[in-house]
Amino acid sequence: MGITLGDHQYGKAENRIVRIVRDSPRHEIRDLNVSTCLRGGFDAAHLTGDQGAVLPTDTQKQTAYAFAKTVGTDSLERYALALARHFVNDVEPVSAARVEVEEYAWVRVSVPVPGSADAGETTEHDHTWVRSGQEVRTLAVTVEADGGTWITGGLKDLVILKSTGSEFHGFLEDEYTVLEPTTDRIMATSLVAKWRFGDVDAQALDFDAVYAAARRALVTTFAHHHSLALQQTLYEMGKAVLEAVPELVEVRLSAPNKHHFLYDLGRFGIDNPGEVFHADDRPYGLIQASVIRDDAPDAGPAWQQYSGLV
Amino acid sequence: MGITLGDHQYGKAENRIVRIVRDSPRHEIRDLNVSTCLRGGFDAAHLTGDQGAVLPTDTQKQTAYAFAKTVGTDSLERYALALARHFVNDVEPVSAARVEVEEYAWVRVSVPVPGSADAGETTEHDHTWVRSGQEVRTLAVTVEADGGTWITGGLKDLVILKSTGSEFHGFLEDEYTVLEPTTDRIMATSLVAKWRFGDVDAQALDFDAVYAAARRALVTTFAHHHSLALQQTLYEMGKAVLEAVPELVEVRLSAPNKHHFLYDLGRFGIDNPGEVFHADDRPYGLIQASVIRDDAPDAGPAWQQYSGLV
Amino acid sequence: MGITLGDHQYGKAENRIVRIVRDSPRHEIRDLNVSTCLRGGFDAAHLTGDQGAVLPTDTQKQTAYAFAKTVGTDSLERYALALARHFVNDVEPVSAARVEVEEYAWVRVSVPVPGSADAGETTEHDHTWVRSGQEVRTLAVTVEADGGTWITGGLKDLVILKSTGSEFHGFLEDEYTVLEPTTDRIMATSLVAKWRFGDVDAQALDFDAVYAAARRALVTTFAHHHSLALQQTLYEMGKAVLEAVPELVEVRLSAPNKHHFLYDLGRFGIDNPGEVFHADDRPYGLIQASVIRDDAPDAGPAWQQYSGLV
Amino acid sequence: MGITLGDHQYGKAENRIVRIVRDSPRHEIRDLNVSTCLRGGFDAAHLTGDQGAVLPTDTQKQTAYAFAKTVGTDSLERYALALARHFVNDVEPVSAARVEVEEYAWVRVSVPVPGSADAGETTEHDHTWVRSGQEVRTLAVTVEADGGTWITGGLKDLVILKSTGSEFHGFLEDEYTVLEPTTDRIMATSLVAKWRFGDVDAQALDFDAVYAAARRALVTTFAHHHSLALQQTLYEMGKAVLEAVPELVEVRLSAPNKHHFLYDLGRFGIDNPGEVFHADDRPYGLIQASVIRDDAPDAGPAWQQYSGLV
Repeated sequence: MGITLGDHQYGKAENRIVRIVRDSPRHEIRDLNVSTCLRGGFDAAHLTGDQGAVLPTDTQKQTAYAFAKTVGTDSLERYALALARHFVNDVEPVSAARVEVEEYAWVRVSVPVPGSADAGETTEHDHTWVRSGQEVRTLAVTVEADGGTWITGGLKDLVILKSTGSEFHGFLEDEYTVLEPTTDRIMATSLVAKWRFGDVDAQALDFDAVYAAARRALVTTFAHHHSLALQQTLYEMGKAVLEAVPELVEVRLSAPNKHHFLYDLGRFGIDNPGEVFHADDRPYGLIQASVIRDDAPDAGPAWQQYSGLV
Repeated sequence: MGITLGDHQYGKAENRIVRIVRDSPRHEIRDLNVSTCLRGGFDAAHLTGDQGAVLPTDTQKQTAYAFAKTVGTDSLERYALALARHFVNDVEPVSAARVEVEEYAWVRVSVPVPGSADAGETTEHDHTWVRSGQEVRTLAVTVEADGGTWITGGLKDLVILKSTGSEFHGFLEDEYTVLEPTTDRIMATSLVAKWRFGDVDAQALDFDAVYAAARRALVTTFAHHHSLALQQTLYEMGKAVLEAVPELVEVRLSAPNKHHFLYDLGRFGIDNPGEVFHADDRPYGLIQASVIRDDAPDAGPAWQQYSGLV
Repeated sequence: MGITLGDHQYGKAENRIVRIVRDSPRHEIRDLNVSTCLRGGFDAAHLTGDQGAVLPTDTQKQTAYAFAKTVGTDSLERYALALARHFVNDVEPVSAARVEVEEYAWVRVSVPVPGSADAGETTEHDHTWVRSGQEVRTLAVTVEADGGTWITGGLKDLVILKSTGSEFHGFLEDEYTVLEPTTDRIMATSLVAKWRFGDVDAQALDFDAVYAAARRALVTTFAHHHSLALQQTLYEMGKAVLEAVPELVEVRLSAPNKHHFLYDLGRFGIDNPGEVFHADDRPYGLIQASVIRDDAPDAGPAWQQYSGLV
Repeated sequence: MGITLGDHQYGKAENRIVRIVRDSPRHEIRDLNVSTCLRGGFDAAHLTGDQGAVLPTDTQKQTAYAFAKTVGTDSLERYALALARHFVNDVEPVSAARVEVEEYAWVRVSVPVPGSADAGETTEHDHTWVRSGQEVRTLAVTVEADGGTWITGGLKDLVILKSTGSEFHGFLEDEYTVLEPTTDRIMATSLVAKWRFGDVDAQALDFDAVYAAARRALVTTFAHHHSLALQQTLYEMGKAVLEAVPELVEVRLSAPNKHHFLYDLGRFGIDNPGEVFHADDRPYGLIQASVIRDDAPDAGPAWQQYSGLV
């Protein structure tokens, strides 16, 4: 009975690259967390310690920073594709490369307009921002040696809450069921969403516009949809994204149910008609679902995350 | 040689209270983290285990939730004052009570205007928000048995960055100094600021307006001030707050210098004129300073935090 | 072109169950984080909001706590199997259930032996422990409606370091390679390992002994193996586990390379022969690999984590 | 009415220094987080941006790493004192320096004895450790220009639990009191303790032995003391430390009450006599207390933490 090496991959995780564009007095900023991952013929490194085929993770780091200047980050997806293609095309043992990017958003600060007669008039500052704590934008590209290319986008940490328009009742009951049904509750989650692109012209597509449209569909649906369960809301959100963005073929959603429990004030003779809640930490419901087009192509390695083997 | 009990305090930390106001279809939300702390004659609990003078922390929790309904949270400061005064006035052994509050901000989501001819026209939704990840608002009130009252406000986690307008040179050098001076760098911090109120009419003051004015002074000064050092910027920020808000008598600032190191791309023959940076994690410079009015009254227990004894 | 529901799952995550056994004065403790996940015919909940097939996540929570008493946690794996089988067998719409468990270790405190003539003699206390901050033990069971059963074990957060016996040289170089080869460095990681059981008698197997043997193989190999690369060490660790534990058929390993950079003290005329290091945070190399028996059965859903769809 | 600069301080926080001693095949490791803080005549930096008196935080970092080699870390306290005295004595504007150190503990891995006939016989490995997740050791030294010196030691993150021997009843009740008294509960905390040294010979004292004795007193007392309240246990723990270590004059303790709520299984007809608990996250009781010798000298700046101004 033998023991053999199975799947393996390696790379440099969490390169914290900040790119400033200062071609004009109005600077631009992109604040990124870039991870690179190589797959291929690295068996010797595992089996005998021979590093002859291994491009050091330090080199991957240097390349990620260098490409932030030479390729630029005007389009995050094209930056990631250039980086992945470089590894696949220029480093012989690499059979596939995956580049994952998180983007932290910043918003320009508002400052008074110099010389304005209206003291309250404000304008965006040219080179000062505050970090927007809303969602983190995510994306991943995978490029294989034969040119096969997969692109996903998404977001995480979008904390969204509605204070009404959510019910939960009519559920299955067994001997351990003590939950009371409700026709009006707070519904809140910290959404993770990922979407998979179909066959697109990656050099021409306006990826930022796709992101904005997908995010808008998620948020608007969460707000407008009268929910009978978080499951239903998730499906509607995924469907809305696919309806809004023809370039996408699948949406995957993960939603912790951030429970807000109505606080029992009746013990103190105080009425509490949906006004005072305890925001609980753990445990939490966790719902995951995929929504997909009937004619979606095979996902290939699109969903195989860098950190996903273990 | 004897051993005796020194200072002591106790309470309930981190009550996660969410308060919805639903008097009209347009709901309001306040998302709070409330900690209560009692000081006074609790020696017997420590020395003999006699709990006769100890109001349980569970009771403090119930009271914090109850007051969120009965007093309401329209003004966070008045909610905190009511809670603290209740403990001091109604619970005999309490000689001082401190209530600390963090507020997590939410912003209404924008949704299309129903029936609008303009597809891009949006409006704020009545009962759906996303969590704004910018700064957390903080406040603390301390009430003593003789009626003495201290109020502080503030914010934390305000991550702010300017991509130019910051220098650092002319510093003291010794045998361990290898830092290169610079006349143009990124300056970034995750600001903590606290301000102390003077003698104010707490029942009438518009605390939310004070908060907005203080934050605006901080942000505008950070943006506009051409910085020769983070120390200088901090002082200017504190001074601007005092100049903008007459009700405040002292500002304290804590600012980690979130280093953004220009990445050395010259090794690869690539010029990098202030465009590609590495955002480093640790270590970081940390600057703290107080800015105070000449005629500020004594701070009393204003700065004695709940968790500050140890 | 249609849009349809794809894969979906739901459950209750992170039930923080602490189980005390107090049948004798010497108590036992198990400190667990239990997540339950159901897969099956829940389409209606997503598509129409009909919850008739949905066992609430609150009910799953109640069941997890109840089973901690009725089944007990003497064997974590048998507890998890009982819970998963209950959901599959007793809840009609469920086609598969997955239960994931983390265990936080505690060690008894040592106290002086009462009445001992030797002041330094200590004994383990009967009912007091400190939390051991070393690795977290993990396990997952998946049970399908046809009785198919998959069990994995593992650990995470095992932070391990060797101060010599690690080299890295002879690697592939390209135009972005600036890393210096080394024949002596610190090697450190925060190991995640998971192992898959083959066909075992789950009612009889001593799972705790398997865990101890697998952990011992990992740690001993990391210590004894002279490393030419982290890749090589990982493979040897996985192989050692399979050689030590015949019940296991596959080991998966994820290892961040926690870089310890030799600090450049030569600038100050100070020699630093492998003595003073900077422990860096980010970025970090990340290596993942699987080691598997030639005759391992198909993995089925063994590796499909609860949170793994997105 | 003027506005002036108040207290201020600055330094480099969280230098992650790992020091290996490799004078023999059996290496030693010290894994440290070192923060340095300077106080003194830095007004010009704040008021005008003149850095002439400011030793850069980068220089402080270089010095901390250099001293890890030249002074060594055999005694953490003497390392910190040397560093603080250097800043006070050799850098003219510095009137006081504070150095704070955290130490992360590592334990040698056990490996089989090579060539032993007993397969189970193990020995400690010479140069491989796993990180012990128990408490973090802390210390702080403050040195003033006139030679005044203050030393504190301590620990944090000591998570300790007893499954019986803890009561809570007889407490004060008001209209918001709903807590049930109990004569048997789990008591658990994540302890922070700090102790202040009196007048000691810092060049000769065995600080590691003091640490071990203080920790032993804390743990033993927590275990042995039958508790009527966490307040009482804290006082007894502090008193035990002072009784065990004559060099110490004050102990400060901060203890979150990590609530373990007995789970209500009676709803399902299941008896639960102190066996199944829910470990809750928030809110939590928080108790702080000081225990002090009657003849303790004035604390001076001993408790004025680096990050404590704000």
